[in-house]
Amino acid sequence: MKYIVDDVEVRAREELFINIHPIQPGGRLTPEAMKALIAYGDGYSTCDWCRKPFRLDKIQRPPIAEFHAELAGFLGMDEARVVPGARRGFQAVVSSVAGPGDSVVVSSLAHYTEFLAVEDAGAVVKEVPLNQSNTVTGENVAQKIEGVKRETGKLPKLIMIDHFDYMLGNEHDVRGVAKVAKEYGIPFLCNSAYSIGVMPVNGMEIGADILVGSGHKSFASPAPSGIVAATKEWADKVFRTTQMVGDVTGRRFGIKEIEMMGCTLMGANLIALMASFPTVRERVKRWPEEVEKINYFTKEFLKIQGNLILSEMPRRHTLTKVDTSRSFDKVAQVHKRRGFFLSDELRDRRIIGEFAGATRAWKLNTYGLTWDQIRYLAQSFQDIAGKYGVEVV
Amino acid sequence: MKYIVDDVEVRAREELFINIHPIQPGGRLTPEAMKALIAYGDGYSTCDWCRKPFRLDKIQRPPIAEFHAELAGFLGMDEARVVPGARRGFQAVVSSVAGPGDSVVVSSLAHYTEFLAVEDAGAVVKEVPLNQSNTVTGENVAQKIEGVKRETGKLPKLIMIDHFDYMLGNEHDVRGVAKVAKEYGIPFLCNSAYSIGVMPVNGMEIGADILVGSGHKSFASPAPSGIVAATKEWADKVFRTTQMVGDVTGRRFGIKEIEMMGCTLMGANLIALMASFPTVRERVKRWPEEVEKINYFTKEFLKIQGNLILSEMPRRHTLTKVDTSRSFDKVAQVHKRRGFFLSDELRDRRIIGEFAGATRAWKLNTYGLTWDQIRYLAQSFQDIAGKYGVEVV
Repeated sequence: MKYIVDDVEVRAREELFINIHPIQPGGRLTPEAMKALIAYGDGYSTCDWCRKPFRLDKIQRPPIAEFHAELAGFLGMDEARVVPGARRGFQAVVSSVAGPGDSVVVSSLAHYTEFLAVEDAGAVVKEVPLNQSNTVTGENVAQKIEGVKRETGKLPKLIMIDHFDYMLGNEHDVRGVAKVAKEYGIPFLCNSAYSIGVMPVNGMEIGADILVGSGHKSFASPAPSGIVAATKEWADKVFRTTQMVGDVTGRRFGIKEIEMMGCTLMGANLIALMASFPTVRERVKRWPEEVEKINYFTKEFLKIQGNLILSEMPRRHTLTKVDTSRSFDKVAQVHKRRGFFLSDELRDRRIIGEFAGATRAWKLNTYGLTWDQIRYLAQSFQDIAGKYGVEVV
Repeated sequence: MKYIVDDVEVRAREELFINIHPIQPGGRLTPEAMKALIAYGDGYSTCDWCRKPFRLDKIQRPPIAEFHAELAGFLGMDEARVVPGARRGFQAVVSSVAGPGDSVVVSSLAHYTEFLAVEDAGAVVKEVPLNQSNTVTGENVAQKIEGVKRETGKLPKLIMIDHFDYMLGNEHDVRGVAKVAKEYGIPFLCNSAYSIGVMPVNGMEIGADILVGSGHKSFASPAPSGIVAATKEWADKVFRTTQMVGDVTGRRFGIKEIEMMGCTLMGANLIALMASFPTVRERVKRWPEEVEKINYFTKEFLKIQGNLILSEMPRRHTLTKVDTSRSFDKVAQVHKRRGFFLSDELRDRRIIGEFAGATRAWKLNTYGLTWDQIRYLAQSFQDIAGKYGVEVV
């Protein structure tokens, strides 16, 4: 019999290619995480030594409890939990503070999972307009809050703004937003899916009440994995424990946290995240060099006539949106492979991760590439341009 | 510098021991799942070929979409999704059908995550009392529904009953419950965390509207992983897509399912679940032999004077609760290692997974042991009894 799984190919793009996929580089496993996956792959592998009070984040062996404390410290927050992806963090927080008829302020560049978390709670998103440089400022958030107040008669229940957005990789004025949030007494969730784990982030210093991050996006961890970190005040709310009592049995499960669904991120994913943590702690210190590399790349990329960078410049993040409508797309219009000509050319040069077939606006991410790879990448784009008669100056 | 992760030991209990842990055996990885973990460990590994409409369960390469269709067929349901654990399935379903002030009927043996899912939705659990053989019957569910109606003036919004419960591993009258649910027009979620993946289960044949199962408990998959399967009617509700519209940008993310938080179970966990699927399909056919083995074991175990089986007899599941208060606990009372004497003795015999130190009521699971291992296990308990002067007849 033929099984579906026979069609699953062995994935080797990280071994065989330079991968510029917009969301993959920060979630590439460390060798330590790979070892952890192998040792802790079995379903309930983290539960061997689960003892009272029977909650994952309290387990001492392996040292899960100690890791949670270190993780909170690393993020400059009081408490941290791991969850199955940043989206589950948004869901937990929104469900804790907002309900039907409530408003949640989000960015005009908010990730769709923020929309879903708000909708799941029965609340409504209220988007903050961007300023001229496509960023969210504290001032614009304040104006939006006033608008919501006028329109609904109530303050929003939560401000959820991205530290760096998924669309342009722009940095938003999260310190300014935090100040505004404090003034209005509204909690501020800083979506740090694109920052914690790749750059130094201190939630307390930002002034955020809650940080939500992603393991598989930026913490060299398998999917799904995510992080919720909070100040003491908000930890008490988001990590509140169950009060439900069985009406027949009188059962209570007092230690279990409602929004975490009791035990949070179990198994191999958690241990892999723990295993990558020493590397992550070190790598965030090298963020300035990552920024230097993307700025070198954009400089070279812009030498191709017609190329544009849609993200803010100079780059402050490796995730970058480019526009090649007036360069590679012109080639695509007359090429028999259409936009796939660019994918073909990149693939021939062992480069992968662009959105196959896209030659207008598309995203790339240079995180983790060496200088040699960066130079090779920039040169490759110039070579392709040259090959098709696009001028390089 | 010393890192927390240095204290993570290499886990080898499945290689070195006979593991009778109550919740671990069904989630032991297949070799195919282990290979999948290694190949797909990186964070966004499943997203290499994500194309329109940009949703995980629609991805064709690897054949994730095809797998979802096969999975639904395997469970006798119309639609299936993968989620980060059965608990996230309960959460999705309860959030879809119940809200503040609503009631959800659950078993008096309901798992705590069912309580949490109900509490998260603002609803209240209403427990069905057990009959004399510690099982939930359709009749008792009907009585409970009437009770809820009298008390609150409203019918419950959901009936959530375990196929086999986590406490005793007893089989509950899910077909009877399904009939009652139909009569009242209330959806029936059959919690199949202990059944799908280890025994043949057909949701349509049971009459369930929704099945929720666990990958890491019963599907030879890493944690977290779970399954939600539903009939067409309930799939439309539980897997409903987002309606939220950005008030500034007009953005919509129409294809994304709210309760799934868009993309569901990504990465290595999904591919490992897919990789174990051919083995799972075959192993469920061998369930009768698994039942034979546990019944052989209990027969031998009961030869130890004072031993009791607290689960229903004969056993219909390998998860079994035993009572050794009048055998091993008597030894423990005068042993310098107290209850740990039993763990020590088992460990010396390369047996692990009992609750260390427990000698009164405790659980074990013989799933997946060979006949040789089963005989060795039974003999070991008898040997330990003999060594400490507990009679074996």
